[in-house]
Amino acid sequence: MSKGDRLVFLPLGGTGEIGMNMNLYGYGKEIDDMKWLIVDVGITFGDETTPGVDIILPDHDFIKERKDNLSGIIITHAHEDHVGGLAYLWPDLKCPIYATPFTASIIRLKFEERGLDHEGYLNVIDLSSEIQIKPFDIKFQTLTHSIPEPNSLIIKTKLGNIYHTGDWKIDDDPVVGKAIDFNELKSNTKDILAMVCDSTNVLTKGRSGSESEVKNNLTEVIKGIKNRVFVTSFASNVARLETIAHAAKETNRSLVVLGRSMHRMISVARQNGILNDIDVILSEKEAVKKKREEVLYLCTGSQGEPRGAMMRIANQDFPHVDIDLDDTIIFSSKIIPGNEKKIFQLFNRLSELGANVITEYDENIHVSGHPCLDEMVDMYDNIKPAISVPVHGEHRHLKRHSNLAKEMGVKFPMLISNGDILQIAPGSPYVVDQCDSGRQYFDGNRLVKSESSHIKDRKRMAYNGVLNVTCIIDQKMNLKENPLIISIGIVSDQEYENDEMVYLLEEEIYKFFEDKTNLSKKEKKLYQKLETLSRNFVFKHTRKKPLTNISIVHI
Amino acid sequence: MSKGDRLVFLPLGGTGEIGMNMNLYGYGKEIDDMKWLIVDVGITFGDETTPGVDIILPDHDFIKERKDNLSGIIITHAHEDHVGGLAYLWPDLKCPIYATPFTASIIRLKFEERGLDHEGYLNVIDLSSEIQIKPFDIKFQTLTHSIPEPNSLIIKTKLGNIYHTGDWKIDDDPVVGKAIDFNELKSNTKDILAMVCDSTNVLTKGRSGSESEVKNNLTEVIKGIKNRVFVTSFASNVARLETIAHAAKETNRSLVVLGRSMHRMISVARQNGILNDIDVILSEKEAVKKKREEVLYLCTGSQGEPRGAMMRIANQDFPHVDIDLDDTIIFSSKIIPGNEKKIFQLFNRLSELGANVITEYDENIHVSGHPCLDEMVDMYDNIKPAISVPVHGEHRHLKRHSNLAKEMGVKFPMLISNGDILQIAPGSPYVVDQCDSGRQYFDGNRLVKSESSHIKDRKRMAYNGVLNVTCIIDQKMNLKENPLIISIGIVSDQEYENDEMVYLLEEEIYKFFEDKTNLSKKEKKLYQKLETLSRNFVFKHTRKKPLTNISIVHI
Repeated sequence: MSKGDRLVFLPLGGTGEIGMNMNLYGYGKEIDDMKWLIVDVGITFGDETTPGVDIILPDHDFIKERKDNLSGIIITHAHEDHVGGLAYLWPDLKCPIYATPFTASIIRLKFEERGLDHEGYLNVIDLSSEIQIKPFDIKFQTLTHSIPEPNSLIIKTKLGNIYHTGDWKIDDDPVVGKAIDFNELKSNTKDILAMVCDSTNVLTKGRSGSESEVKNNLTEVIKGIKNRVFVTSFASNVARLETIAHAAKETNRSLVVLGRSMHRMISVARQNGILNDIDVILSEKEAVKKKREEVLYLCTGSQGEPRGAMMRIANQDFPHVDIDLDDTIIFSSKIIPGNEKKIFQLFNRLSELGANVITEYDENIHVSGHPCLDEMVDMYDNIKPAISVPVHGEHRHLKRHSNLAKEMGVKFPMLISNGDILQIAPGSPYVVDQCDSGRQYFDGNRLVKSESSHIKDRKRMAYNGVLNVTCIIDQKMNLKENPLIISIGIVSDQEYENDEMVYLLEEEIYKFFEDKTNLSKKEKKLYQKLETLSRNFVFKHTRKKPLTNISIVHI
Repeated sequence: MSKGDRLVFLPLGGTGEIGMNMNLYGYGKEIDDMKWLIVDVGITFGDETTPGVDIILPDHDFIKERKDNLSGIIITHAHEDHVGGLAYLWPDLKCPIYATPFTASIIRLKFEERGLDHEGYLNVIDLSSEIQIKPFDIKFQTLTHSIPEPNSLIIKTKLGNIYHTGDWKIDDDPVVGKAIDFNELKSNTKDILAMVCDSTNVLTKGRSGSESEVKNNLTEVIKGIKNRVFVTSFASNVARLETIAHAAKETNRSLVVLGRSMHRMISVARQNGILNDIDVILSEKEAVKKKREEVLYLCTGSQGEPRGAMMRIANQDFPHVDIDLDDTIIFSSKIIPGNEKKIFQLFNRLSELGANVITEYDENIHVSGHPCLDEMVDMYDNIKPAISVPVHGEHRHLKRHSNLAKEMGVKFPMLISNGDILQIAPGSPYVVDQCDSGRQYFDGNRLVKSESSHIKDRKRMAYNGVLNVTCIIDQKMNLKENPLIISIGIVSDQEYENDEMVYLLEEEIYKFFEDKTNLSKKEKKLYQKLETLSRNFVFKHTRKKPLTNISIVHI
């Protein structure tokens, strides 16, 4: 330890929101000289409020500008909110990546999909490894979650040790991987200065429950069903896929897999020695020949995604797959907040087709992969950190987590946000600085800032439409042609055919040019006047304020 | 009864969806000769999937075309999904309106707001009235709900009687109005052929609970709070306003009312002899002088509406109203599906300001105004109709309701949708025909069809942007000026400043005009070629498919 060294934590994503987790640890004297370690590079998904944008990533300018001091990246596990951003940001990050085998398989796939090369960068390490990413020593400690190989990290430095939990729960009987070895955990975390811990379910009392319960319940539910069974879940919930494969086997149903991400995840899992319970996967065509009680369809689209298998089936748009009266659809999944309308619409379409829909409200067929309150109490009892940093949550989750830490005797519960640079050691922890943080969008084929005005323009057009006015004038500022007016999204089809508004606006513009007092020599002023005239006219006519463009062509 | 007469029911809105209830009853020989009665003209609200549209109404073409045969309109109660559309559709409906006093006050207000005259049309009738709207005899029967004067209707015809429940629940101790008089109800509904009944909460077991429980619980919760209390709820939930006013009085807090719709509803209620428990309402300015434990703010915005009082306060944008550390915000309301993200965002902002947020998840401070399963069982036990028509629900609700009716011994449970013309009598009920139904939008200042392409254009622009290309050419088809290219929402600010894409596209268009083989004499073909060129170019450059307009000006 050199004099003046400091250890800092900086979340660029995931602290103050659910999704796009990206955490940085820095060690050194000044922020600009520190060596940096990245833990996870996740994404989150767009929705109706971000039209045209499916993938949202953390603003990574801070580390891009300090790329030379970036020592390495660890991906704790293979969920999109932890690994999904890596390939997108790769050109700005290029440095050694460390991941356990299953996670590494997913990383490889993601690089291949984007046509990127990771040759020489991806280091596949064993579970429970200890690695050096100078100046950090890192011990991997396996916990339980809903995907294979959920790694927590003991990050050791000369100024103190950090326990970074990643995503976890306490599952005493997980269907994928082993239960947490608490003796091992305790011996590995004897001297933890700070714990950086998952907050997702802190508002839920009790315990999340074991995947084995879901396995038993789901099998029982399916035993009682006569006709076709469709089960939908996240492909990334590999534990659930194992559960569903087991239930199919127990109820003598052949598995049919629908949806690209489901096929892909099953293939990666089987390459890694998981999901080996599945004897055979029938194609949709083969399944048609089976009796209705002999098949179980495992489908993507549990959140009502328009292109997910479940919605396509509901829209009768999936070749060789039909729903008949009294087939059963099981949603073995959570309704993610914000997806309610889409999911209920899916329920309704399935109901219209005569299917029975079973959800977690009806049967105990889903458990969360994150710790509820009592599990978090257990974790604090085991780790007893001096400092607690709640991450992986919105403000209301972080706040409750911070209060919990206080109740558990933590001396410094630190409620921070994305962009806060928290000094963990030496001395009492405090936020020493803040860096720019926020979101960037993957729009079409490249990254753009979420606050870019072209994104705002898109929203404005969605609300109010667009008006383009082109005036062709001669040197004496006389109109040489009819003003060219294009109105999009302002008046309805029928009105547009009649062209009433456009015709009247044309007249207004003619009048404008006839009155020579309007015709300022200053081009800018002329634009402004025409814009005001056009906007006011349309507003008066329609109460809409379209995005307005004026072009003047001199000939 | 003339030979050949028929009695039909036709829902134009609300059957297969929650919201915009509009129900028609017809009596006569042929559909086109029948006399029509409208029960309710409601709206529903737009969201991110309908940018620029706040108000959505049922397509009313069917009755507009048969306006001459329209005998009257009854509004059962004053909720937006039952009354909100009346003033919007009024020019096409003009006919006698019937409503009880409180509902009539709201109707008057709505006509005034839209500058419409209802002189001579609005008939204010007493509770429990019996009226004639030929050929229908209608008896009003008060039930319980969350607003004053929830009227159900016994619609009597020579072919049989219909019980139209409107919105209801069984509240044995309502805070507004009286409990249902089941003796009266039974004697009024001795001979019901068909029941048209609310399905909103059929998926919820048990009972909805009494508003009195909320009154007691809310008062207890507020007694335990030290600092400022903000309670938010729907202004239209007048029972809840009474409950909150009571809690304020019991806890010695002065009431401060925030939000336009809240002020308006309280004023109408007090004009009608309701909410008279309130001694004084403080202004925001007066409230500042009070101690923190002496005030209770009653606020709009329980659904996270951007202009609601609650969100404005959270954004520190409400004059004279501040939230300090450990003030308490109580959401005495339901989270309406689809509003989760907005509401959670509001929770987070309040949490960031240091406030404590209490919701129905924490305390028993909300009950629904609609019947849960056991209440519906009671209703069927009382009414015993031969025909049941579930309305006021999505398909999954209607289906469960229809199954319930079957279980309750109803001979004809009729699962129908908006636009189905159901013959109720004579004979066994069946859908004799279907009419056009659907949604229309109030866009800016007028009604447009939801399927109008200008609405689709707006969404397309939101996803992919707009490209406008104007080419000015001479008689020999040479470009006379630089092609005028306007790109909106396609490339980011920085890229736009560099103008790279636009410059390159200009070059492509120059090349296009230089190659004379491109220049078809057929103007249409020229447009198509330029459009394809431009679209493909932009797609290659950005992976976006903008809405593209080509203009060619000949000079």
